[in-house]
Amino acid sequence: MSELETLTELAKRRGFFFSSNEAYGGTAGFYTYGPEGAALKRNLEDIWRDIFVRELGNMELEAPTVMPEAVFEASGHLDGFDDMIIECPECGATHRADHLVEDEIEDIEDAEAYEPTEVAELIATHHIECPSCGESLAGESVEEFNLMFGTNIGPGSSAPGYLRPETAQGIFVEFPRLKEYARNKLPFGVAQIGRAYRNEISPRRALVRVREFTQAELEHFIDPERDEPPIDRVADVELPLYSVANQNAENGGVETYTVAEAVDSGIIESEWVAYYLGRSMDFYERIGIDMDRFRYRQHLPGERAHYAADCWDAETELGGSWVEVTGFAYRSDYDLSKHGDYSKEEFTLFRQYDEPKTVERATVDPDMSYLGPEFGGAAGDIAAALESLAGRDRSAFDGDEVTVEVDGDEYTVPVERTGFAVEEQTEAGEHITPHVVEPSFGVGRLVYSVLVHSHGTDTVDDEERTYLDLPAELAPTTVAVFPLMTKDGLDDRAREVSETLREAGFEVAYDDTGNIGRRYRRQDEVGTPYCVTVDYETQEDGTVTIRERDSTDQTRVPVEGLPAAIAELVDGATLAEL
Amino acid sequence: MSELETLTELAKRRGFFFSSNEAYGGTAGFYTYGPEGAALKRNLEDIWRDIFVRELGNMELEAPTVMPEAVFEASGHLDGFDDMIIECPECGATHRADHLVEDEIEDIEDAEAYEPTEVAELIATHHIECPSCGESLAGESVEEFNLMFGTNIGPGSSAPGYLRPETAQGIFVEFPRLKEYARNKLPFGVAQIGRAYRNEISPRRALVRVREFTQAELEHFIDPERDEPPIDRVADVELPLYSVANQNAENGGVETYTVAEAVDSGIIESEWVAYYLGRSMDFYERIGIDMDRFRYRQHLPGERAHYAADCWDAETELGGSWVEVTGFAYRSDYDLSKHGDYSKEEFTLFRQYDEPKTVERATVDPDMSYLGPEFGGAAGDIAAALESLAGRDRSAFDGDEVTVEVDGDEYTVPVERTGFAVEEQTEAGEHITPHVVEPSFGVGRLVYSVLVHSHGTDTVDDEERTYLDLPAELAPTTVAVFPLMTKDGLDDRAREVSETLREAGFEVAYDDTGNIGRRYRRQDEVGTPYCVTVDYETQEDGTVTIRERDSTDQTRVPVEGLPAAIAELVDGATLAEL
Repeated sequence: MSELETLTELAKRRGFFFSSNEAYGGTAGFYTYGPEGAALKRNLEDIWRDIFVRELGNMELEAPTVMPEAVFEASGHLDGFDDMIIECPECGATHRADHLVEDEIEDIEDAEAYEPTEVAELIATHHIECPSCGESLAGESVEEFNLMFGTNIGPGSSAPGYLRPETAQGIFVEFPRLKEYARNKLPFGVAQIGRAYRNEISPRRALVRVREFTQAELEHFIDPERDEPPIDRVADVELPLYSVANQNAENGGVETYTVAEAVDSGIIESEWVAYYLGRSMDFYERIGIDMDRFRYRQHLPGERAHYAADCWDAETELGGSWVEVTGFAYRSDYDLSKHGDYSKEEFTLFRQYDEPKTVERATVDPDMSYLGPEFGGAAGDIAAALESLAGRDRSAFDGDEVTVEVDGDEYTVPVERTGFAVEEQTEAGEHITPHVVEPSFGVGRLVYSVLVHSHGTDTVDDEERTYLDLPAELAPTTVAVFPLMTKDGLDDRAREVSETLREAGFEVAYDDTGNIGRRYRRQDEVGTPYCVTVDYETQEDGTVTIRERDSTDQTRVPVEGLPAAIAELVDGATLAEL
Repeated sequence: MSELETLTELAKRRGFFFSSNEAYGGTAGFYTYGPEGAALKRNLEDIWRDIFVRELGNMELEAPTVMPEAVFEASGHLDGFDDMIIECPECGATHRADHLVEDEIEDIEDAEAYEPTEVAELIATHHIECPSCGESLAGESVEEFNLMFGTNIGPGSSAPGYLRPETAQGIFVEFPRLKEYARNKLPFGVAQIGRAYRNEISPRRALVRVREFTQAELEHFIDPERDEPPIDRVADVELPLYSVANQNAENGGVETYTVAEAVDSGIIESEWVAYYLGRSMDFYERIGIDMDRFRYRQHLPGERAHYAADCWDAETELGGSWVEVTGFAYRSDYDLSKHGDYSKEEFTLFRQYDEPKTVERATVDPDMSYLGPEFGGAAGDIAAALESLAGRDRSAFDGDEVTVEVDGDEYTVPVERTGFAVEEQTEAGEHITPHVVEPSFGVGRLVYSVLVHSHGTDTVDDEERTYLDLPAELAPTTVAVFPLMTKDGLDDRAREVSETLREAGFEVAYDDTGNIGRRYRRQDEVGTPYCVTVDYETQEDGTVTIRERDSTDQTRVPVEGLPAAIAELVDGATLAEL
């Protein structure tokens, strides 16, 4: 079995994750986290929250997963969130047309960039066949398929809704309220951890390409002209960068730069993106990503969304290929501007000038007792057109008469009747649309990466063992407690010990079946860092054995000091230091 | 403003919860938790997890929210999860037909129990009009509307899916795997906290009747003949019970019984339900439900699902009416049996007998060299029919010949050619379908109840203040830190203090705007139990002021002892005890 197959088998057998609804034949693209996986995922989310919410002082919210159509008209998902599909005329199977082209035609790596008609033509000229039944797909049309799951809100179909394709929109649409919670001051960040959905045509690679997944997104709202990231805090952090230049070079690979170097040399365009690449290193290391199988890859010009100034993905190596686990994007004012345009609220924030500014402003005060009799019902519109014109082009009022257009008709008004004047006004500030910096993490892909990277085998006591060397704060169980035997009161004592540890806040497992060696193996396989054994010596001198997963070393500590000892170990102490 | 209106205004203004997508006119039945609400909700879920997962040693999983149709065919939701609706012929508005009948006809309280045709007739005979436009609804048909949100999995409509109407199904369908994680031993419990969805016709009452909500459900799988709850642990817990008898009595109200009394007197039929009512009291008290506005109400016979032996709801009083916040149901083997019938897997568990049992079993071993030539192609089916008949009715083999039916044709076989025999077999156990006890908590309704119950006003320093007297472990912020002034280094010192507290694991707010009194009020209003002020004395003697929300009392403690002091206060110490 390959590395990934072995891990998937372990994940299913030990309760990390498994394909959902297998009793009903399974549902492609949907996975259930079992007890071990749900605990690990929760721990991973807590570490993320610790870094990206608590440490950075950001807000966190929880928005619904179902959102109305208007939101996705504005965000662009209704029109632009499509995959190209082709249906087999023989067996009816549906395939990603761009993937077929990429798989079958050697030179093409990014078929998504082509038009559907071009892809259809490539399929025809290269005689590509249906992967399910072998029928020729030549001549079949390639259609755009929207990846959002649709539904209806309330009875009937008058209020279409969609499962959100990213958690971000639940933050953007609430910006008018969120800015109040931030007391109208930039910069501020709003995070959300929650489900998102993409109706993938071909879900695959376990937790990598799924239809329902968990995102941890941070939307950092900034004033593009005034706010700078505290880049000093991460200036010396080393980043493994795979730049556009190196991707395009013959033998280009990953090169390590400090954040400061990457910014100074211009490899990373946006200081904000550089800042978050730096902050995130701590996160990946803390959750146990193998940093030899990790890189930051810059988006190629063709990959970037049109509004994004600079984009980098964090990628992990899984089974020989690279998988995006985080996207870092400078989204500019794209999202807020769109919602401002499409909705009835303002998605701006008032920026105070350092000093109030005096500006000249052209105003009108039309003489309605003239306009009314002269132009009848059109008078109001003419007055409004004059005001707009004064703001736009004050030179139009230079002559004796001024002409405005209302509903296609031109009206000429004597300038003296317009009340035109240029006044000095003092302004305290202006309304600006904040820019957004977004680190967007795929929680399931991170869980999967950590499991694959932490999975290993070695030999202990001449026996092969399988282990997950998960960091203690990520492991589903922190400490397992065993009685040496289930007699002579050892089991009662062990239960007491496990209860005490539970009350001290640790995740504890109790296991009294099979020999101790077997029990160690079971815990090693799910990544439990520490095992505690209650034996006959415990009854004599009140000490228990602590055994460490990675070294398999053991030491004895007094029972009453056990919670403190485990806490020290979790914090990084070695057994010898206890 | 009423109590609920005041709370809803506070919730929106201070970021607990608000109607989603208001920039697009709002989406009825969908709420977003703002920063304060999301933090409070997460704390509430953690307390639930602490009690119902960690303390009880249960498993927790995370299943997808989208599930395939087959699951809901089995669960009964596809056919039975309907509301009655009626559409106005004039304005097109859709209404809950049963609600109209309940609102307009005095004697009818539970119109959901009627057939749609009966409800239509009641609407006609009572001349009920459309609440939106006043048009008569007489003669309009009443339709069943399924409350599940439907969608399609993958392209086309060949694979319908639904947003789960309860988290429970994600647990039930995985029973064949979950029992392995439990090492095939009953009883075991599996919990899940997650989103569930109901496409309500008329969402209302803020977080009470919404379309997307969070459930915390525990499915406890038990052997109905062998497993008993550890009822001794809760025997003396007092329960405020509103029994069926008292609901039907003229002046019946809530009566208090201990768990033991309620079981012994038969008021609560199921010991398992009684056990969970007892365990849950601790939870409601810990999250700060006002126990004078709380009761357990027994389901009336008409309310119960047909499979449920005994059901009780926990209810909280909100704005003068009672709201279900938890359902406690003994679901028998209904769910697992259904999935066993509809799916291709076994939803049973092997129960070992105390002693192996010896049973007589009739078997056949048909002589195929006779059956083959005699019956040709039907021989195999005939052999199978003989085996089935032997298991069913061994007396059929008493004579010389035995007759079986295959596909409508009768075949007669000499008994001597059937190899019929009665053998003694030893059986180690049998396959049973576990029963399920389910406490199902509505997280949003609990959040709402806690906010309403903790909300109050009093007078401090001759000024009215608004507060939430939330328990410390539930409050979004545990401690707020203020510098007396933003000068003379007080603010730097206060930021240090807040950083130290954050690192000690507390949820900390920092606030330096407005006078101290204002800052206290702001924290009181969101339920922050402790405020710490850094002032000039801090610079002299290294002490800070701790001020308590409820008493508004203050005391000074040394800065270096602050994290320990806050921890003691959270654990229940008073200021005087520090």
